[in-house]
Amino acid sequence: MAEIDRMLEANAEWAERFPGSKPVAPARKVAVVACMDSRMPLFPLLGLEVGDAHVIRNAGGVVTEDTVRSLTISQHLLGTREIVLVHHTDCGLQKSNDVDFADLVERETGRRPPWSARTFTDVDADVRESMRLLRDCPYLVSREVRGTVYDVDTGRLREVT
Amino acid sequence: MAEIDRMLEANAEWAERFPGSKPVAPARKVAVVACMDSRMPLFPLLGLEVGDAHVIRNAGGVVTEDTVRSLTISQHLLGTREIVLVHHTDCGLQKSNDVDFADLVERETGRRPPWSARTFTDVDADVRESMRLLRDCPYLVSREVRGTVYDVDTGRLREVT
Repeated sequence: MAEIDRMLEANAEWAERFPGSKPVAPARKVAVVACMDSRMPLFPLLGLEVGDAHVIRNAGGVVTEDTVRSLTISQHLLGTREIVLVHHTDCGLQKSNDVDFADLVERETGRRPPWSARTFTDVDADVRESMRLLRDCPYLVSREVRGTVYDVDTGRLREVT
Repeated sequence: MAEIDRMLEANAEWAERFPGSKPVAPARKVAVVACMDSRMPLFPLLGLEVGDAHVIRNAGGVVTEDTVRSLTISQHLLGTREIVLVHHTDCGLQKSNDVDFADLVERETGRRPPWSARTFTDVDADVRESMRLLRDCPYLVSREVRGTVYDVDTGRLREVT
């Protein structure tokens, strides 16, 4: 069975117990920027309810032009004012480096990506760099940003200061 | 109370009932690309368990260079082979257009963004365009991509063919 068919089946159960409509603007006026990692179900992990927060996710939870686009839309069109970053332990991006990754993709597809994979070594340093990039971002109306690291082996979230 | 402090408090409860460690590679070998909308808690909505799937989210759930970077990492480093797109009804990006949005940001910050907001009018057409972009992407090893629209007023997911 294709994954989408399993998802459509599971969704029928979700729709049965659907909690009802919510406004498009996030109730808690916050946007979360997190890694795409499969071990982070962000709503229960952060205590979010349907309608509470925007959730932006990519490989690493890093700040790219697309992250900035999404946050700018979140703040200007939909009224969010705080940003919370969620990186995590045991990230796939700590297990490679940008050159090895480009080599791997070129070997397997015949094409070398022109973009960087954004690998990193120190997760706390990576969170601090993301906070710095957002505090310097000229398109946001609020630069209230704080960062965390999630421990995928204990379920605990820790603030990076 | 800052939003992060509420999240840290809620996370302590999550950690109490933490289901245990899982491998970094997604068990169901699937990556979900979805909009950042606050009304979509993707894990329960799609029947995903901790460790099942990568989750990539941005404004609109659109395909950008960052989406391609994340999916390329997902497939080459972490073994996913299917992609499922989740767009939705009543999207914030349907309520503006790229020029009005750039005008708004320039008026509020004094800086005009050099990137497009990626607004759209027809959600089904937007899903089809995203599927096309991914099927043409040269860096992926698998282009098994299917797309859906989530109805934020009923909780129902519908495949776009």
